[in-house]
Amino acid sequence: MSGTPIISVVGKSDSGKTTLLERLIAELKRRGYRVGTIKHDTHGFEIDHPGKDSWRHAQAGSDVVAIASPQKLALIKKLESELTLDEVASYITDVDIILTEGYKRADKPKIEVHRKVVGGELLCSPQELLALVTDEPLNMPVPQFSFEEIGALADLIEEKFLKRREFPLVSILVDGKGVPIFKDFTRQIVAKTVKGMVSALQGGIGRFISIKIDLGEGEQK
Amino acid sequence: MSGTPIISVVGKSDSGKTTLLERLIAELKRRGYRVGTIKHDTHGFEIDHPGKDSWRHAQAGSDVVAIASPQKLALIKKLESELTLDEVASYITDVDIILTEGYKRADKPKIEVHRKVVGGELLCSPQELLALVTDEPLNMPVPQFSFEEIGALADLIEEKFLKRREFPLVSILVDGKGVPIFKDFTRQIVAKTVKGMVSALQGGIGRFISIKIDLGEGEQK
Repeated sequence: MSGTPIISVVGKSDSGKTTLLERLIAELKRRGYRVGTIKHDTHGFEIDHPGKDSWRHAQAGSDVVAIASPQKLALIKKLESELTLDEVASYITDVDIILTEGYKRADKPKIEVHRKVVGGELLCSPQELLALVTDEPLNMPVPQFSFEEIGALADLIEEKFLKRREFPLVSILVDGKGVPIFKDFTRQIVAKTVKGMVSALQGGIGRFISIKIDLGEGEQK
Repeated sequence: MSGTPIISVVGKSDSGKTTLLERLIAELKRRGYRVGTIKHDTHGFEIDHPGKDSWRHAQAGSDVVAIASPQKLALIKKLESELTLDEVASYITDVDIILTEGYKRADKPKIEVHRKVVGGELLCSPQELLALVTDEPLNMPVPQFSFEEIGALADLIEEKFLKRREFPLVSILVDGKGVPIFKDFTRQIVAKTVKGMVSALQGGIGRFISIKIDLGEGEQK
């Protein structure tokens, strides 16, 4: 993992995923982290309001519609095919951690939520699980927390993903697909090259750098 | 200009900005371009629906909330201060042109919409205007179109901004602020360096490249 850490909260319907997320978001915010979340909606959703200017842009055929106020930015993008979790995450900038609701098939550390009343088998194998949040003890070799032990769960997340981050974090997308970076060495070269170029351009540097390039059609070779 | 071209549609209330945008979007889509739009909302807006999971994430304190379905991606980001138009535009990827509704104070080419019944002085000086869309001829040295002459207006936009694009397009943000690139030479160096690094990493290249780096706190020097 070379970009922002991503942890998925998964579980059956009505197991309490959103409730756990609400508590975890609040706890991480209390600790001073900037938090992003992604809700995986497998069915499709409508969010903009019929008749509004931005809705009319989308109806007229706009591929991406943004609405910007002094307090908020909203973006709605039509997709030709479903994005991977990494691709969605690439739109989320300037946060310390990304929590997802859903994405049980993505290759990210997971917290499974379980309630006795919902029952049945767990969705994940112990190997996939960072933790289990459950209202009954289960016989599994995975750290287990009750729905009230949010502080202890946040401690685990902080220890594993937030204190041990190795900066610089680097993420690269080509045509919307994530490019894996396997070596620390590669990450350092990319970060230092980009940092050098950008600081030469503006005579200084900040914390978050983003570069976007459109090579043009047929110019890829 | 080194990134995706941006054109702003401005005008007084009820002058027909959204109507013009609808027609222009449809016409540019018909010509095969990918279009993004930005609505400038100076007052603030609510878009997510109370009670929905994503809304609950935001209420709990999430700084950025995304919702991803197979057909659509939505992103809602809380802002500490208003973004510039260039910053908002940096979230819009994979389009050929960005049209805005509003942003009369931003430094982009503008199309002013005027209706006789609304009256009054124009918002823009002739120097700022790419074109005027009006239902009465005005004595101004600016190309003028009626609300029905969308094809001719699209021809002008195509000629000035879409046919003459010089690839590669490059945009750079540091901590959310756009870094101006004044020289063609600089644009070429940045694009070729990044293209080289990324193609070495994955043994090939695509059209759109995006790199994000988080240098970490205190690591900027």
